[in-house]
Amino acid sequence: MATTVGQLAARINCRLCGDESLPVSGVASLSSATSADLVFVQEERFFDRALASDAGAIIAGEFATSKPASKPLLICAHPRLAFARAAALLCQPVSYTSGIHPSAVIHDSVRIGEGVCIEAHAVLEEGCILGRRVHVGPGVFLGAGVELGDDCDLRANVVVYSGVRLGQRVVVHGGAVLGSDGFGYVRDPQSGRHEKFPQIGSLEVGDDVEIGANATIDRGALDATIIERGVKIDNLVHVAHNVRIGEDVVIAAQTGVSGSSVIEKNAVVAGQVGIADHVRIEEGAILGAQCGVPSGKIIRGKGVVFWGTPARPIREYLKELAALARLAKKK
Amino acid sequence: MATTVGQLAARINCRLCGDESLPVSGVASLSSATSADLVFVQEERFFDRALASDAGAIIAGEFATSKPASKPLLICAHPRLAFARAAALLCQPVSYTSGIHPSAVIHDSVRIGEGVCIEAHAVLEEGCILGRRVHVGPGVFLGAGVELGDDCDLRANVVVYSGVRLGQRVVVHGGAVLGSDGFGYVRDPQSGRHEKFPQIGSLEVGDDVEIGANATIDRGALDATIIERGVKIDNLVHVAHNVRIGEDVVIAAQTGVSGSSVIEKNAVVAGQVGIADHVRIEEGAILGAQCGVPSGKIIRGKGVVFWGTPARPIREYLKELAALARLAKKK
Amino acid sequence: MATTVGQLAARINCRLCGDESLPVSGVASLSSATSADLVFVQEERFFDRALASDAGAIIAGEFATSKPASKPLLICAHPRLAFARAAALLCQPVSYTSGIHPSAVIHDSVRIGEGVCIEAHAVLEEGCILGRRVHVGPGVFLGAGVELGDDCDLRANVVVYSGVRLGQRVVVHGGAVLGSDGFGYVRDPQSGRHEKFPQIGSLEVGDDVEIGANATIDRGALDATIIERGVKIDNLVHVAHNVRIGEDVVIAAQTGVSGSSVIEKNAVVAGQVGIADHVRIEEGAILGAQCGVPSGKIIRGKGVVFWGTPARPIREYLKELAALARLAKKK
Repeated sequence: MATTVGQLAARINCRLCGDESLPVSGVASLSSATSADLVFVQEERFFDRALASDAGAIIAGEFATSKPASKPLLICAHPRLAFARAAALLCQPVSYTSGIHPSAVIHDSVRIGEGVCIEAHAVLEEGCILGRRVHVGPGVFLGAGVELGDDCDLRANVVVYSGVRLGQRVVVHGGAVLGSDGFGYVRDPQSGRHEKFPQIGSLEVGDDVEIGANATIDRGALDATIIERGVKIDNLVHVAHNVRIGEDVVIAAQTGVSGSSVIEKNAVVAGQVGIADHVRIEEGAILGAQCGVPSGKIIRGKGVVFWGTPARPIREYLKELAALARLAKKK
Repeated sequence: MATTVGQLAARINCRLCGDESLPVSGVASLSSATSADLVFVQEERFFDRALASDAGAIIAGEFATSKPASKPLLICAHPRLAFARAAALLCQPVSYTSGIHPSAVIHDSVRIGEGVCIEAHAVLEEGCILGRRVHVGPGVFLGAGVELGDDCDLRANVVVYSGVRLGQRVVVHGGAVLGSDGFGYVRDPQSGRHEKFPQIGSLEVGDDVEIGANATIDRGALDATIIERGVKIDNLVHVAHNVRIGEDVVIAAQTGVSGSSVIEKNAVVAGQVGIADHVRIEEGAILGAQCGVPSGKIIRGKGVVFWGTPARPIREYLKELAALARLAKKK
Repeated sequence: MATTVGQLAARINCRLCGDESLPVSGVASLSSATSADLVFVQEERFFDRALASDAGAIIAGEFATSKPASKPLLICAHPRLAFARAAALLCQPVSYTSGIHPSAVIHDSVRIGEGVCIEAHAVLEEGCILGRRVHVGPGVFLGAGVELGDDCDLRANVVVYSGVRLGQRVVVHGGAVLGSDGFGYVRDPQSGRHEKFPQIGSLEVGDDVEIGANATIDRGALDATIIERGVKIDNLVHVAHNVRIGEDVVIAAQTGVSGSSVIEKNAVVAGQVGIADHVRIEEGAILGAQCGVPSGKIIRGKGVVFWGTPARPIREYLKELAALARLAKKK
């Protein structure tokens, strides 16, 4: 979508310095920008590189106010955020043509909102309910009774087990599996065999959640697994049965969350973190990459970074690493 | 399936105290139970909560024998196990209607047992053999010569490479890949390029195995990868070529087992564990979450818990952590 | 493909000792070989076992020159490499019959080279370009504008997002997802909500790359994610946006590489390694299993092994482990 920097600046709440009539039609990095592209500079030290780039215009922080500039500047407090919003305006999201591919297999009872796009080879079982403008990608499977809110976007080969409910604007990337059986068994002390504990709970996903490629989120055993509004889950993350993840939590790739653990809102979990069962990560805590939280622990501290296994405040952990390095050198 | 607590108690070997005629039709957690539901209490301290719940009846340990109770009690030595068995009786498993969906693509040579259900868009190549009551979910791929024993259940979008053999009652969750090529190359010292080592072995999976969503199990290089009876493998687990996993082993999510390692029967492997190549985990050993077993090591000790990288008995590891914490505080 | 050991020895540059007319038609391990099979011995101490096996002929190192042998010997400097090459000659790779299955859904604009095989239920969107002899497995999805070079082999249920480009002879195993959105958000400091940073870059994969089952490789945010020639990526590996992986790098299972990191050519990355963002792994460095490289770090040293989190030269790490063990014993 082409527009002018003047119109764009107004829509993303930036102060414009320079020619408001310059046309702009895309966003880019400094190295790949053309004259039709907008770029952004978060830190002053990169400003000269942005000016020297081929970009048509620059989103920059307040530091740029006093700078002589050969290109239009869009000045604001949060350039990266303004850039993200500009991109959302300029770059058309993948657009799906409403309609149902003839090869999709859809049970008669499925209720489909207006503007829905169901692609080739999708399979929708009995009683699914799809809101408006939902996209069901090719090869997607929706088990019986799955509910998808308006504007959900399920990419190719996603698997959703029966009864899972997604809110609005949930994006699920290729190959993710939602609502699979949790990993629960009871050992018969006599035979030594593992018998299956019922995995008949549900999975509820709130609005504006994004779930990465090949991630897996299990349904609850008896109750529900709950992913609240705004949670972002990266590729290959595993969420076990009965977990509850609070609003706006971010979980990076390959992290695993074991059964019945709770991650409260605004927590940040880096990649390859292991959270054992019945853990509580309290609001706003930050778990560093690869750290491990043992069974039943509580992690507390808004904005405090934890690291290591067992996870401890990073300051402690770094002190221990330093002490160990000194000790090893002595010997 | 509705029944009475009296009939149920008899089938799961519990001693009934109370009204045997009470109807019961499901299982639930304490918080979600209705009067038609059975709940269980493993520990005495939760017994009052169970009594106060809306549940119709309670499975409880011997501790409940002397308790005054307002609901029928089903008393036994292992309440959790009895509850799992009650659930297996009361909760109908997902039932599949026998038949082949017209969109499935099935080679003429495939042999199909009675009561088999093959769902939409499944693809079965030459020479597959399916036992009785097998379920092949939507979008499943079975390569040439795959054999599935009676009552196997493959959920949506599972991929099974050619020649893989599964025993009876094997459950494979959505997106799992069985029999893919192992990761084996030989470097040409002159060109520096990696040339493929043959990955032409097989994968054999025993009876009563369950494999989690998006798990991957490679075929052997020249011989076989073997998963024995009763093994339970969680989501996103990786099992490499030529691994052998013994009976009733349990492996939690995101663990990886490298080439040619052996896990003997009854071992328990927690989540995110890394087992390098040519390792032997001996019978009944327990590997704690995130621990790492280096190449060629032997882990020995029934019931002994190992932790850390390199994995060592947890008592040692905890002592080391404590010593390190003290050391860091001194400085 | 049957041949004689004489002909085979000539093709794989081995010196033959013994009857050149012996027919050979396959490769095998020592334990499973029949008289029609070739085996190999990398180390002298296994030579007697090879002689005692049922194998028809043996590839062995120079150490075997002086040995009395009851079977033909194919002698060379690198037996494992010669064996891999013999296997490539003797074992027919999976062969695909050229043609397009009628259930595949292919946009009219797709360009298809000669000898291509597109299997059942594959979906190819607008503008895809397939080179010669490409194999598109069952249930594979190719988004708009995907380009696959000659002899690419995509196994069942692979998902390729729009615009991804693969070189020649790229093998992608079942369930892998290529070109999914990177994990990038900008937090609005006022609402606390995460807004999506554009993920509109590309993914470019060079020749002779192999990608494991259920691996995920994200497209770049604004620029490209780049996997260079000859890279081998194991199952369940995650590669984030804007990563660059140099030629002939090997990455074992379940490793994760975060955004904008660079792995230079010939590096070796073991399993479950975590590489944070903006890291540089320099040429030929070796990262041991489960190690972690913190954000922004540079790892340097051809052939040097690094271990632990934060990753350090293994010699240091082992010293520290030993010092810690001693310290814990004292107390």
